[in-house]
Amino acid sequence: MSTTVAPDPTRRNDGVRRAILSAAIDQVGEVGYAKLTIERIAKSAGVGKQTIYRWWPSKGALFFDAFLDLAGDGEATALPDTGDLAADLKLVLDATIDELNNPRFDQAMRALHTEIVLDPALAAEYATRLDNPMRDIKKARLRTAQEAGQLAEDVDLEVAVDLVWGPILNRWLHRTAPLTSEYAHQVVDTALRGLAPRVS
Amino acid sequence: MSTTVAPDPTRRNDGVRRAILSAAIDQVGEVGYAKLTIERIAKSAGVGKQTIYRWWPSKGALFFDAFLDLAGDGEATALPDTGDLAADLKLVLDATIDELNNPRFDQAMRALHTEIVLDPALAAEYATRLDNPMRDIKKARLRTAQEAGQLAEDVDLEVAVDLVWGPILNRWLHRTAPLTSEYAHQVVDTALRGLAPRVS
Repeated sequence: MSTTVAPDPTRRNDGVRRAILSAAIDQVGEVGYAKLTIERIAKSAGVGKQTIYRWWPSKGALFFDAFLDLAGDGEATALPDTGDLAADLKLVLDATIDELNNPRFDQAMRALHTEIVLDPALAAEYATRLDNPMRDIKKARLRTAQEAGQLAEDVDLEVAVDLVWGPILNRWLHRTAPLTSEYAHQVVDTALRGLAPRVS
Repeated sequence: MSTTVAPDPTRRNDGVRRAILSAAIDQVGEVGYAKLTIERIAKSAGVGKQTIYRWWPSKGALFFDAFLDLAGDGEATALPDTGDLAADLKLVLDATIDELNNPRFDQAMRALHTEIVLDPALAAEYATRLDNPMRDIKKARLRTAQEAGQLAEDVDLEVAVDLVWGPILNRWLHRTAPLTSEYAHQVVDTALRGLAPRVS
């Protein structure tokens, strides 16, 4: 039995990959997506450009992997389901707000949005790789609530998702006011009960 | 009485001013806000740079005047009030959607947003000059409805505005799906009635 630890190429690759993804987020925060180059990322990660090109065909492919990694790609497969829809939605929005209030995530998300707002192809890629899978998870939770009689039968789930999450992203984008847990909870309660007076 | 029409400096100034504002919107659509220069606008409007600097201290001041002019600055002083809140909101959102689906407005609004998303100072200026005055007009209409018993007494009007207008801007921004009148009307109806089941 030897005490020499043999190099583990898988582990080394994983470390290099994470350094590159992390450098992409660092650099996009510094110079914005438009000025982000493979050279800049390679230099920041301490690797050669060829290492990056071996794994990613383009800057776009790399940045999306970096953003998905930062956004917790694959971690969320379902929203919490305690049976209390309002409580579950508040928990999820609190986590979203924590993320948007985190400077590293905020910067990367803003850089991504400066491009998405102008570039329909990038918007489509964002939808396919991040927004649609997340929408599906949100709709699945709302569908469960609808089946349990906690959501009106005739509510369109696409519209429901937009009513709950739309105000949060909007306030973040326009910096209308601070993104607080109190605001998020108000959005959930108001969306569920509606603006119209309750029938008494 | 002379038949010679004397030159009217006010009218001439107004024509030049409009040509400059229009050129600013044309050029921002072509090159984006970051690459928009006073030189470019002057050339496109057929005036000298000094003419522009006589009226506007900076590119930012000029572009905001151009955007406000395009967005119908000062035209909207109140939302329609027929006594039917849902119908009035649908009318207003239909107009918003027409505007966002107009390529000239869409391009200028996208250019503005690429900058707003990154620049807190510009976001604050957008809020002060356009978004807050519009929010006040929206809240005034909702307040009338609240006083007439058509909106629940405990609804926060800031949150109410976000629930009605947030989904529209979000769908525009992310190009999630086409911005249609049908969608806007669904948003209004769902926001008013809420997601939770009606008490029967």
